[in-house]
Amino acid sequence: MTGSDGGNSAYGNRTFQRSKAHFTDRITADGRDGWPVEPGRYRLVVSRACPWASRALVSRRLLGLEGALSLAVADPIQDDRSWRFTLDPDGRDPVLGIRYLSEAYDRRETDYPGGVSVPAIVDVPSGKLVTNDYQQITLDLATEWRALHRDGAPDLYPMALRDEIDAVMADVYEDVNNGVYRAGFATEQAEYEAACSAVFRRLELLTPRLARQRYLVGDTLTEADIRLFTTLVRFDAVYHGHFKCNRWKLAENEVLWGYVRDLYQTPGFGDTVDFDHIKRHYYQVHTGINPTRIVPLGPDLSGWLTAHHREELVGRPFGDGTPPGPPPPDEQVAAQGRPAPA
Amino acid sequence: MTGSDGGNSAYGNRTFQRSKAHFTDRITADGRDGWPVEPGRYRLVVSRACPWASRALVSRRLLGLEGALSLAVADPIQDDRSWRFTLDPDGRDPVLGIRYLSEAYDRRETDYPGGVSVPAIVDVPSGKLVTNDYQQITLDLATEWRALHRDGAPDLYPMALRDEIDAVMADVYEDVNNGVYRAGFATEQAEYEAACSAVFRRLELLTPRLARQRYLVGDTLTEADIRLFTTLVRFDAVYHGHFKCNRWKLAENEVLWGYVRDLYQTPGFGDTVDFDHIKRHYYQVHTGINPTRIVPLGPDLSGWLTAHHREELVGRPFGDGTPPGPPPPDEQVAAQGRPAPA
Repeated sequence: MTGSDGGNSAYGNRTFQRSKAHFTDRITADGRDGWPVEPGRYRLVVSRACPWASRALVSRRLLGLEGALSLAVADPIQDDRSWRFTLDPDGRDPVLGIRYLSEAYDRRETDYPGGVSVPAIVDVPSGKLVTNDYQQITLDLATEWRALHRDGAPDLYPMALRDEIDAVMADVYEDVNNGVYRAGFATEQAEYEAACSAVFRRLELLTPRLARQRYLVGDTLTEADIRLFTTLVRFDAVYHGHFKCNRWKLAENEVLWGYVRDLYQTPGFGDTVDFDHIKRHYYQVHTGINPTRIVPLGPDLSGWLTAHHREELVGRPFGDGTPPGPPPPDEQVAAQGRPAPA
Repeated sequence: MTGSDGGNSAYGNRTFQRSKAHFTDRITADGRDGWPVEPGRYRLVVSRACPWASRALVSRRLLGLEGALSLAVADPIQDDRSWRFTLDPDGRDPVLGIRYLSEAYDRRETDYPGGVSVPAIVDVPSGKLVTNDYQQITLDLATEWRALHRDGAPDLYPMALRDEIDAVMADVYEDVNNGVYRAGFATEQAEYEAACSAVFRRLELLTPRLARQRYLVGDTLTEADIRLFTTLVRFDAVYHGHFKCNRWKLAENEVLWGYVRDLYQTPGFGDTVDFDHIKRHYYQVHTGINPTRIVPLGPDLSGWLTAHHREELVGRPFGDGTPPGPPPPDEQVAAQGRPAPA
């Protein structure tokens, strides 16, 4: 999540604008930017609260990159120095040895004036930030990191479907992924209404498509599903109330509610989700829209593991591959208000 | 609605406390408080936003008192002088000739230090406030005003059932009617959680009762149904998001959603409801919990007139009586986002 929506300063008197990612070096198979794919060299820094960072959490699990690319999980509540490692012993990431993600930014560029955002990938030997390019990181995990994928890993960005995947993701980004933020951070009624209407218009356009087919593009899981999932899984818990995207709950849309539960129950998706981190982050950080910082008790999360019947539709989640095994023991999400990982 | 929750000042740093009604004179058949029931003498002042005032709106319709007790409808948005008649020509109530309800309070008691609240009943000849006792007004409309009831009016507070009605209403008041306010105006997490939990615990206790029987007490509509209705009709539109009572939407509880739609579709209930007034009031007045004053587009209101099948349960809405006719033409609620009155 970019710094521009993470802190109070985000909530200014202008139309909400998402910051462009600033560090766009790529970690590639050929190392052309100076950062070759290597097992154990890099550390992925995320917040489990953040939908943008959660894309990388899901991709890493589906592709079996847990052993090759280690994981740092930030506290869901930033302070005025942004994302921090207060969940770790002594408040310090045990591998990078830093207390704030901003320290990795500083090692890369002194006095960097922009926001600190997750997802971020840090070069462990130098402690420098390599990239915080949330739009590119997962595409590179799917393609450039191929040599390190597990056996049976799915192709999340298949060459033959890239045009369609890109087109779907562009619409979903504009209206849904970022649309919920534009609705939530609007300071004028008209701006809110335009954003909220676009959210639901897009969801209504996606509904007949997802009534016919199990996944967004082709007949297997792709990057497009990951990006829609990380917004939809947060929808009823935070965007519905906190961001006022409240025409209906996802649970009231039979197709989308089935789609998101299907993904949630697929290994690699639901086991990355921490509703406690999600709810505390949004409700406690955005004091401009929730001054009391009170975190709602709802919604009831007991429905997430109920039958969805999506397997009756055409679709093979992992194509010719296989699902990932369970998450590493030290990455299990505690069962706060959610069912234990399957 | 009492002044203590209507303005920004409501939102202090203490546990939410509803003001006690201050003016508790009663208008009675025998006139023992100096205010005898008389047709045309009194004016009921309400906001259609307010659940407490809306009780009187429903009672007056069910009992056919529109001709005997005239109606002033305040703007849903108070200013720093509280409820005002800005919906009327020149911003003045055409019968009382006043711009603010507080002027009727002032005529009754100079420099009255308390809040200005609706419902209020004003004596037209003197312009003085008679009562703002929201707990008593509707009981008196049901019992003391009997000589002026329409033919076929129901008995909303039948003598034989009063103990049971009072007991149900006391629980519903504590946990639901007032409980949603305690949740919404809480300034501490624990205070919110206690209130929100009580709201849903009570609704869950009421659910099996209302699965068995069409109405709360006995087999006809009573005061108990009116008091539950005016909270439930606001539940998904404002209490769910704005007051964080979000374990589930009423629309997700088949029994309560059927119950509230049944009442909504009963003449005298839904035709008093103005969702536009309701939403604008809560979201624009309580800047302590909604600083942007943005009013959500949702929820979708199209379900309110759908079939509820409650007529299959035992129950005779008006007992041996009849439903009221349509509201007087000048009291029709404009169809802003809701179906036209039946």
